[in-house]
Amino acid sequence: MKETFIKLIKDVDLNNPIFIEALPGIGHVGKLVAEHIIHELGAEKFAELYSPSFPPQVFVDEDGIVEPMKNEFYYLQGQGEDERDFIFLGGNTQGLSPEGQYAICGSILDFVGEYGVKEIYTLGGLGTGQPVEKPKVFGAATNKELAAMLQEHEVTLRSADGGIIGASGLILGLGVPRGMHGVCLMGETPGYFIDADASKAVLTVLLELVKVDVDVAKLEERAEETRKMISKAQQMEREMAERMNIVPGEEDLRYIG
Amino acid sequence: MKETFIKLIKDVDLNNPIFIEALPGIGHVGKLVAEHIIHELGAEKFAELYSPSFPPQVFVDEDGIVEPMKNEFYYLQGQGEDERDFIFLGGNTQGLSPEGQYAICGSILDFVGEYGVKEIYTLGGLGTGQPVEKPKVFGAATNKELAAMLQEHEVTLRSADGGIIGASGLILGLGVPRGMHGVCLMGETPGYFIDADASKAVLTVLLELVKVDVDVAKLEERAEETRKMISKAQQMEREMAERMNIVPGEEDLRYIG
Amino acid sequence: MKETFIKLIKDVDLNNPIFIEALPGIGHVGKLVAEHIIHELGAEKFAELYSPSFPPQVFVDEDGIVEPMKNEFYYLQGQGEDERDFIFLGGNTQGLSPEGQYAICGSILDFVGEYGVKEIYTLGGLGTGQPVEKPKVFGAATNKELAAMLQEHEVTLRSADGGIIGASGLILGLGVPRGMHGVCLMGETPGYFIDADASKAVLTVLLELVKVDVDVAKLEERAEETRKMISKAQQMEREMAERMNIVPGEEDLRYIG
Amino acid sequence: MKETFIKLIKDVDLNNPIFIEALPGIGHVGKLVAEHIIHELGAEKFAELYSPSFPPQVFVDEDGIVEPMKNEFYYLQGQGEDERDFIFLGGNTQGLSPEGQYAICGSILDFVGEYGVKEIYTLGGLGTGQPVEKPKVFGAATNKELAAMLQEHEVTLRSADGGIIGASGLILGLGVPRGMHGVCLMGETPGYFIDADASKAVLTVLLELVKVDVDVAKLEERAEETRKMISKAQQMEREMAERMNIVPGEEDLRYIG
Repeated sequence: MKETFIKLIKDVDLNNPIFIEALPGIGHVGKLVAEHIIHELGAEKFAELYSPSFPPQVFVDEDGIVEPMKNEFYYLQGQGEDERDFIFLGGNTQGLSPEGQYAICGSILDFVGEYGVKEIYTLGGLGTGQPVEKPKVFGAATNKELAAMLQEHEVTLRSADGGIIGASGLILGLGVPRGMHGVCLMGETPGYFIDADASKAVLTVLLELVKVDVDVAKLEERAEETRKMISKAQQMEREMAERMNIVPGEEDLRYIG
Repeated sequence: MKETFIKLIKDVDLNNPIFIEALPGIGHVGKLVAEHIIHELGAEKFAELYSPSFPPQVFVDEDGIVEPMKNEFYYLQGQGEDERDFIFLGGNTQGLSPEGQYAICGSILDFVGEYGVKEIYTLGGLGTGQPVEKPKVFGAATNKELAAMLQEHEVTLRSADGGIIGASGLILGLGVPRGMHGVCLMGETPGYFIDADASKAVLTVLLELVKVDVDVAKLEERAEETRKMISKAQQMEREMAERMNIVPGEEDLRYIG
Repeated sequence: MKETFIKLIKDVDLNNPIFIEALPGIGHVGKLVAEHIIHELGAEKFAELYSPSFPPQVFVDEDGIVEPMKNEFYYLQGQGEDERDFIFLGGNTQGLSPEGQYAICGSILDFVGEYGVKEIYTLGGLGTGQPVEKPKVFGAATNKELAAMLQEHEVTLRSADGGIIGASGLILGLGVPRGMHGVCLMGETPGYFIDADASKAVLTVLLELVKVDVDVAKLEERAEETRKMISKAQQMEREMAERMNIVPGEEDLRYIG
Repeated sequence: MKETFIKLIKDVDLNNPIFIEALPGIGHVGKLVAEHIIHELGAEKFAELYSPSFPPQVFVDEDGIVEPMKNEFYYLQGQGEDERDFIFLGGNTQGLSPEGQYAICGSILDFVGEYGVKEIYTLGGLGTGQPVEKPKVFGAATNKELAAMLQEHEVTLRSADGGIIGASGLILGLGVPRGMHGVCLMGETPGYFIDADASKAVLTVLLELVKVDVDVAKLEERAEETRKMISKAQQMEREMAERMNIVPGEEDLRYIG
C-alpha cells in the first residue's frame, strides 16, 4: 500500500451533514464521546480509511482477532431538533509522519466534502498532567462568530499559549480553504487514562451545540468497558500520541486530538 | 533505487501454496524456525526483494563478503500429509519507516498472491524481558475459525493488551482485503538472544498446523551455529527492531515480527 | 494535501525586488525584524505558502481563532534611497523534514524568481546560549564581493566553525544556481527568548545595506507585545527549531534561521 | 528541489575507469585519502550531485562564503603502472534518510556506470572509540577473489561482527546487480578527530591495489590544514554520521563511510 485510500462500504445520501472528528488522543476523550453517540443513536459505518502513514502494525482484540489500523466513517440521518444528518470519524490510530497527517486529513476532508459538509466539530482532550477537579471544556474556532458561540456555551477559549496538534487541529485548518468552518472542543483531563468525566463534559457541550439529545448516563459504564478492553491498546495510543507531540515541552499543557 | 522491487530468480509453478513469513525480529524466533525448515526440507530460493526503505547499509559475512539488505522467497512442493506447496519469506532486515513497511508488505502480498496464496502463517517472538521457564506459544488470527483452531493446538490467544508490530502483523492485516487469511505464532522469549527454545515451541505448533514432519532435534545445533555467525549482526537487528518498536513502553511485553 | 503550494492573494508587478527571508528561528530575531519593517512601512501580503512538511497542527491566537501553519509573502514598492521594490517572507513555521525543507525553499525561490528577484537577504539569530552584552551581527555571503561589503558594515564574517541550518541557509544555497546572490545576517543572541536587542542590531545593518529608513525605536515595544502574544507559541517554535537542529553538539553556538 | 540530480560540469571521455568513493565519515579517513590523491595528481572536478535528502543547511567557509551541501565527481586519466582512468567521489555530506541514501547511491552508480565503471573502491574509517597504536586496515569485498586479494595486501577481512553503514556499504551493495565489483577499505581510528594516521594506512593499501604512486609524506600536512579549516564542520559531520548510525550499540565498533 503506497497511498492513503478510502473504501466505501455503503452508498448513503446525506443532506448538509455535520462532521464530527473523534480520533484517538489524550485521555481517549473525543473517541469516547463519539463512540457513545454512535452506539446510543445507532450510527452506521459507511466507509473506512487506510494509510501507509499509520503505524506499521495491527491490534489484536479480546478474541485474538487481528484488527488493522484504520479510520472509520459513520453516519446518522435526521437527528435532533433540526433534523440534521451527521458524519462521525473514529478509528484506532492517527498518521505518524507530518506528511502522512496532511495526506490523511486532506483525504478525509475531500471525502466528507463530497457529502456537502460545511460544519466541523473536532473533539479531544487537553492534558494537564495533574488531577482535575471538575473538567472544563476548552475550545477554538475557525472564525469569530463560532468563537463567540462557544463562549455562550461556557467553553473556555484557548488563549495563545499553544496549538492543537494532530487531526483535531489539522482538519479545522485544512477545512477553511475548502469553505468549511468549525470548532474544536477539548475536555480538560489529567491524560494517561480513559477519562469519562472529561468526555461527559465535552459530550454535554457538543449535544447543546448540535441540538441533539443523548442519554449521558451510560457514558461512565461505556468508559469502564472500554478501559477493560483497551487498557494496553490505549497505552500504545498514548505513547504514539506522545511521539507525535513533537512540539510542546515537558511542562506544557498538551493537547493531541 | 527509489522503489521496492522483487527480482525473480526462478520460474516456479505452485498450487495453492501456504505462505510462511519469518523475517528477523525479537529473539530471532521466526527466522530460526524458517531457516530450520528451509534447510531440513531443502527449500529453494526463487526470488529476492530489495527496498530503499531497508537500512542504508550492507552486512559483511564471515568471509568478508558484502551481503546487501534483502528479503528472500523460498519454495517447497508437495510436502506433508496434504502434499501442500509452500512459500517461505526470510531475510536479514525489515523496512525502517512506516511508509516503507507498508510498501514492502504490500509488494510481498502482491507477489505471493500471484502464486495463489490464501493461507498465511507469520512467525515471531514475544519478548517478555524476563527469563522464561517453558516458552508458551502465543497467537492471533484473522478470523474466529482460525482463532479456535489455534486454541485446539494449545496456542494462547493474545488478549487485547497489545498489537503485533512489524511485518508479522502488517502482512496479516494487509492480507485480509486480498482474500487471504492466517495466523501469527509468537514464541515466548526473554528476547535479546537467539532463542532456540522459543523457536522449537513455535516450530512444533507450526508443523502440526501445516501437517508437515521435520526433525526438530537439530534446531538447537542450528541455533548455536547461528549464534556464532551472527552474534553482532543479530544485535544490530535487535536494535533496529527496537527502533521500529515505536509504540510500547519500557515495561511492556513486546512483540516484533 | 500532498504537495507544497503557494496561494496567490493579489497580482503585483514588481521591478527587480530585493527578497528578505525572515522565518521563525532562534531568538525570534529575523521574524521580529521583518515584522517591524512590514508594519512600519505598511507592506502588504500578496501570497501564502502551505506545505505537508509543516508541523501537523494549527496555532490558536489570542481570540481563540485557529491559525494554520503557513509562510507569507509581503511586498513593498519604491522604498528608500534607490526606490527599490521588496518581497518579505514571514510565517509561523518552517518545514520539518530535510526533504520538506528543500521542497519548500525550492518553491519559495521559484515563486520569487518569477518577480525577478536577484538579491537575497536572509535574517536570523546566532544562539550563544550565554548572556550577550552588546549583540554583534554575524554574516555570510554567496560571493566575495558581498562578503567584503558585509565587512564594511561591521558585520563579522562567520568563520568555518559551522553552518547555517534551515531556510536562511538553504535559500541562499539554492538561490545560487538560480542566478541569485545574497547574504545572511545573524544577530548574536542568548536564544530562548524574544530578543529585541539582537533584532535591533540586525535591523540597523539591514537598513544600511538596502538603503531604507525605518524608525528603530518602536522595535522594543513591538518585541514586548510579541512576547505577550506568543510566549508559548515561540516556545513551541524554539523546540521545533531544536528538533531541526540535527547537526551541532550541545556545546555549539547554534544558528537556525 | 524534489529529486536528487547530477549537474555535469565538463564532458569527459573515460576508459574503463576505477571508481573511488570517499564521502565524509568517521575520522575523516576516506575523505582525507581522496583529497590527497586529488590534489597530488591534479584530479579535475567534472560533475556535482545535489539532493533534497542532504541536511537542510549550508556550510560557511573560512572566508564567510556559503557552500551548499553536495557531492563532487573528479576524474584522472592514464595514471599509474596500468595507465588507468579514475573517478573520485568526494563531498561535504551524505544523505540523511534511508530512502535518501538509496536514491543518492543509486544515482551515483547510474552516473559512473555511463562511464563504464566496473571496479569500485569505497574508503572510510572504522571507529574503535579507543586509542589506536598502529592503525590496521580492515576490508570487505563483493566476491571471494577480491577478498583474497585484500588479504594478500595485509588487509584484515571484517568478520561477521557488523555491517558497513552508509554510502561505503550501499555503493558496493547496489553496485553488484549493475555488474560492478569492489572492495571497502576502512582505516582503524579512534574516530572523533581527523585521523591522518588511519588515512595514511588506507592510502598506502589503496595505492598498491590500484598501482598508482603518490607521495604520502604530505598527508599529515594536509590533515593539519584540514583540521584547522573544518574543525567545527567536521564535528557537525561526525554528529550527522552518528545520527545516521542507526544500528550499532554504544559499545560497538562503528563504521560509517
